[in-house]
Parts: sequence; structure tokens; C-alpha cells
Amino acid sequence: MPGRRRGRRPASEDTRTVLIEAARAVFTEQGYAGATVRQIAARAGMDPSMINHWFGGKDALFTEAVLQLPFRPADIAASVLDGPVEELGERFVRTVLRVWDSAGGGQMTAVLRSFASNNEAVQAFREQMLDKVFLPLAERLQVEDAAFRATLCASQMAGLALARYALALEPLASADPETVVTAIAPNLQRYLTGDLG
Amino acid sequence: MPGRRRGRRPASEDTRTVLIEAARAVFTEQGYAGATVRQIAARAGMDPSMINHWFGGKDALFTEAVLQLPFRPADIAASVLDGPVEELGERFVRTVLRVWDSAGGGQMTAVLRSFASNNEAVQAFREQMLDKVFLPLAERLQVEDAAFRATLCASQMAGLALARYALALEPLASADPETVVTAIAPNLQRYLTGDLG
Repeated sequence: MPGRRRGRRPASEDTRTVLIEAARAVFTEQGYAGATVRQIAARAGMDPSMINHWFGGKDALFTEAVLQLPFRPADIAASVLDGPVEELGERFVRTVLRVWDSAGGGQMTAVLRSFASNNEAVQAFREQMLDKVFLPLAERLQVEDAAFRATLCASQMAGLALARYALALEPLASADPETVVTAIAPNLQRYLTGDLG
Repeated sequence: MPGRRRGRRPASEDTRTVLIEAARAVFTEQGYAGATVRQIAARAGMDPSMINHWFGGKDALFTEAVLQLPFRPADIAASVLDGPVEELGERFVRTVLRVWDSAGGGQMTAVLRSFASNNEAVQAFREQMLDKVFLPLAERLQVEDAAFRATLCASQMAGLALARYALALEPLASADPETVVTAIAPNLQRYLTGDLG
């Protein structure tokens, strides 16, 4: 996770950033159901009313702090254009894995666990992961069945997060990132550009 | 789900079967956290004490009713021997999908949702899915890195359950089973017998 950025920005954005970082830490530790607005505010050194003021409540803060993927769809599209299409699967898995691993897997575990008790989290995940990442990616490639391919990609990447972090299935959980990239990337590549029969 | 079997078996097994079927229905409807021993007993038309008597409590009943895969590892091994190894991925995905779809996906959604609040469910899933199905299967094939391949298979199949049932990502969620088999099977086959780099 990036450190808190300082300077240059207006105070209001600082407040949001501090709350988001506190929320991310508390949601990761306690899970969605266990975390409270009061705990998050205490971690941020602010009054709980600030969470309602800036985010409108716990659900929206969770979406902002935990479900936001740490890259923009535009960056994904850029990476498609930046390199050979046939290495797209590899670049994609490597990028996502680096982000997830750097948070120790806790962020993805919090996301997956939130699905049990938070339908808004399910909806937000669907929008963030499917509508903003996989679907534009598949559409950019101008392949047939882009929507179906996007959901197949989502199934593999969500399953990877589940197996590596939330379920901690060994030896996948402790495998070197490049070993995982090499193992998974060709399957993702097939979902994106291969023959699905 | 199969109908309640009758006759031939001793009364004690009937009691267990009735409780397991009631539990499966209630866990599927309410989720692990929401279901109570009292609700399950009421559904079965029995006293709640019977659940403690026969299963020792809610956790163990959940394991028995929901986490048990409806096929035995020995049957999987048999299916490997029964047909060409290169069609193993296809047979496997088709078999599992038929079982999951026939329960309307509710059973797998209940399993996935239970992970958030029940560490015993995580452990049981690990044992049922990984230790009793994928690992023996990979070992039977005498491929290198059997344990790693088994976890890759688990990642794809758990991700499929998550995407198709719990998250209901369209168009994967409503896709014809054979379309899903054709799309997923080659990827599972690669994890089982292919070159992982």
C-alpha cells in the first residue's frame, strides 16, 4: 500500500485519504461484518460523524477503501496497447498479483469475506472488476463473446484470490509470484483471445 | 438434489438423512451465519437435541450437509481410468457443474458465504475439495508438482462457483452448461497435465 501522500492537496482530500487508509486497515483486520464506523474513526483520530459526512456510511466507505482496484481501466487498456497482445495474460496476472501480494492478501480476503454479509459489496465488485476492467479489456481486443470472456477471466482471478489468500491453499499460497504468473497467465490469455470452442 | 431415499436402511440412518436434508435446505436459504439449530430441527420435524446427538452441533452438521461433495474421491479416480486422460478436464468440469447446477447453485453459494464466519468450513472445504479430490487426482496422473497443480485446479473451480453462483456474473451465470464445460475444460486440463512453464 502506498504511504500517505502529503502536501499540495486541499485539506478535505487529506481527510478523505486518512479515513480511507484507516478503513482499509480496519476492514482488513476485522472483516466487513466485524468492522465498525467507530473503530475506523478512532484509527483515523477523527469523530465518527466525519465518516457519514465524507462517505455517507460504512458501505460506501468499504467500497471506496477496499473494493477500489488500485489501477484504472484506462491503465489496463494502455498496457494492452503497450505490448504484444499475446503477452496480455502474463502482464495482467503479474500486475494484479503484485498489487494483491503487496497488501499481504488481506485486502482481497476482506473483499471475499464481505460478500457473505454485504450485497452492496457484491454489486461493487461486479462493477469494479467486471464492468471496469475485464469487460473493457475484452471489448478492446475486438474478440467475439467479449462479455462471456470477461466473466471467465473474473472467475479465474477471483478464484486465484480465494485460493491464494482467503483459503490459503498450499503450495499456491506461498508460491513465488513468477511461478504463479507462469502457471496462470496462459489460461487467462486463452479466455481473452483463444478459441473457446 | 436426490429425493429422500426410503426403506431398506435402519431407522438411525433415516434420522441422519432427514436432518442432513433439512440442514442443506436451511443453510442454502439462510447462509451459515443465519441458520440456527432450532430452524433446522423444525424443518426436519425433530427436537433440536437430535442435532447434537447425531452430529455434535451446527458446525459438524454444516460440514456433513453442505461441504460434502456429492461424489467420492474413488469415483473421480475411476473416471480417470474410464476414459482418455486428455479428456479428463472435460469430464471433470461436466460432472461437477451438473451437481452444482442441479442444486440451483444455492449449495455452493452457502459454502462460499460460510467462509466469512466459519473457519471450520474453510478447513473442511480444504480437506474435501483439495485433499480428497484434486490432490489424489493429480497424484494419480503421476505428473510433476501434483500438489501445485491441485491448488490451481481448486482456484479455477472455486472461482467458477463464485462467479456463476455467488456473484452471478452474466453471461457466465446463465450460460448453458455445455458452453461452460467447453470454455473451462481445456484450462483445467492444462493445470492437470499441461506444461506449467
